[in-house]
Amino acid sequence: MRRIAREFAGRPPATVRLVDWADEEGARFGRSLLGSSAFAGTHSIEADRGRTDRDGVKLEDALRRCGVEIDKFPDAGKERKNAAAYLELHIEQGPVLERMGLPLGVVLGTKGVERHIITFHGQEAHSGSTPMTARRDALAAAARLALEIRNIAKKHEDAVCTMGSVKTFPGIVTAVVGRCEVTLDQRDLEAKILAQMYREAQEASQRFAAEEHCTVNWSRLWNIEPVPFHPHLLGLCEHGMPSGPLHDAAEVSRAGIPTVMMFVQSLNGISHNKIEDTKEEHLEMSVVALDRLASKTMDWILEPR
Amino acid sequence: MRRIAREFAGRPPATVRLVDWADEEGARFGRSLLGSSAFAGTHSIEADRGRTDRDGVKLEDALRRCGVEIDKFPDAGKERKNAAAYLELHIEQGPVLERMGLPLGVVLGTKGVERHIITFHGQEAHSGSTPMTARRDALAAAARLALEIRNIAKKHEDAVCTMGSVKTFPGIVTAVVGRCEVTLDQRDLEAKILAQMYREAQEASQRFAAEEHCTVNWSRLWNIEPVPFHPHLLGLCEHGMPSGPLHDAAEVSRAGIPTVMMFVQSLNGISHNKIEDTKEEHLEMSVVALDRLASKTMDWILEPR
Repeated sequence: MRRIAREFAGRPPATVRLVDWADEEGARFGRSLLGSSAFAGTHSIEADRGRTDRDGVKLEDALRRCGVEIDKFPDAGKERKNAAAYLELHIEQGPVLERMGLPLGVVLGTKGVERHIITFHGQEAHSGSTPMTARRDALAAAARLALEIRNIAKKHEDAVCTMGSVKTFPGIVTAVVGRCEVTLDQRDLEAKILAQMYREAQEASQRFAAEEHCTVNWSRLWNIEPVPFHPHLLGLCEHGMPSGPLHDAAEVSRAGIPTVMMFVQSLNGISHNKIEDTKEEHLEMSVVALDRLASKTMDWILEPR
Repeated sequence: MRRIAREFAGRPPATVRLVDWADEEGARFGRSLLGSSAFAGTHSIEADRGRTDRDGVKLEDALRRCGVEIDKFPDAGKERKNAAAYLELHIEQGPVLERMGLPLGVVLGTKGVERHIITFHGQEAHSGSTPMTARRDALAAAARLALEIRNIAKKHEDAVCTMGSVKTFPGIVTAVVGRCEVTLDQRDLEAKILAQMYREAQEASQRFAAEEHCTVNWSRLWNIEPVPFHPHLLGLCEHGMPSGPLHDAAEVSRAGIPTVMMFVQSLNGISHNKIEDTKEEHLEMSVVALDRLASKTMDWILEPR
């Protein structure tokens, strides 16, 4: 920031800010991009007020303990005034750059997400006395969906579908599963493809439920549309790739502020894990690249339009 | 018992006892047939001493609170002395008799059981950034096994295979499953078929693990061989069928005591559930049938051999 201040000293005034967003991850309350959504004005206080963590603590109360009132979230929107561009540097958290032999890439946009809990209801039954042909096994329907979502995703180059959690009830060794709760996370950079995958997964779940003499219910946890980044800013960089993970840059871009982000390679594509790592020389390159991108962006902002 | 005492008053003396076995179900400590295995002498104190319930309470300590010392279990074996026959009446806990339109059936024997925990290890990864082709999804391998055990069981008329519990780790909506723990319960009345099903499930799990770039480990929870009941006592009854659930009669039979048990129909095959029920007229018929079987068994015991 000192270098930018020196370089642009003779030019028209422009404020450069470093932003530290609150709770991008959403690990505790299941709500990603909390701070940036408040900034972008896409946040719904009513939808989030009742969220609880696994110990039953409310989001609202946890925020208050940190000196933040949820009702004041809309105030964050005033920070959008006159914002001309937003840049973000992040680790990739995936294996794509490493596989391509690239240290860095520019992110074309963040994928849209459909996130659901799917519950199959069958009939709990004794594992010893219930013939195979008399079962209504909720796990069987769920297992078929766990495999089918891979076929649904593989039709599209960058699409992903993930079943991350399976819960079985009663969940004991001697009972056929009467109820099975699973999560489904689907992502793509194109809204049409995302909608198609969501529809195909619903249809498959209904088909499997019917064939296993079960029923199925869907409940949406969260969703966000795909957010492509700004075409001019993308043009300042090389090596484009979509982002599967969500980033605060997506919220900023949705707020109409020209946005772009860069990824630096993650070793072995591992993230959210103690072995997550990035080579030091790649970290250096990424900081230098962000610095150059900042200068190019400042030139673009300051040129007469 | 008063009726038997009157009917057999002029015959050689024989003691008739009513037995109330401790903890047939094993729901709390995962160890079925506790009391009857102590009676039969098949119980291993060392194997059971360390068992804990879900709150970490040891079986040994829970027994002590009820005034029972685990080290005195072998004393129960003295009750086997001179035991000439054992009869048991039980609800079927399955849908077979109802489907056949029969109120009662005699049990040919109890199925042998193989009970295992199977753990698939893959690689936890971000659901958004990890391409479908780069995943090592432990749930995918487990889902394939959940479906394959049905094919393994269906080759044999009365065999059953059940995956009753699935646990996913980290088990969150935004992560590919790195570790998946499942339970498998396999049962058949023939030891050969049971062994074949166990082998086939192991082979299938290894094939699926390899194909999904995962590894797999098996850990035995418990097993028991099939226990056919006594041919002469079976001959005193009609309508034979195998028992999938375990019963204390299996332990008594393994101890070399001529044993048979009868089932009375369960409505809708439902058991271990609040809607479990049996028609009142079927209950009456079953008690009358047990009474007749007791007389026939007494005649058999008392006749010169």
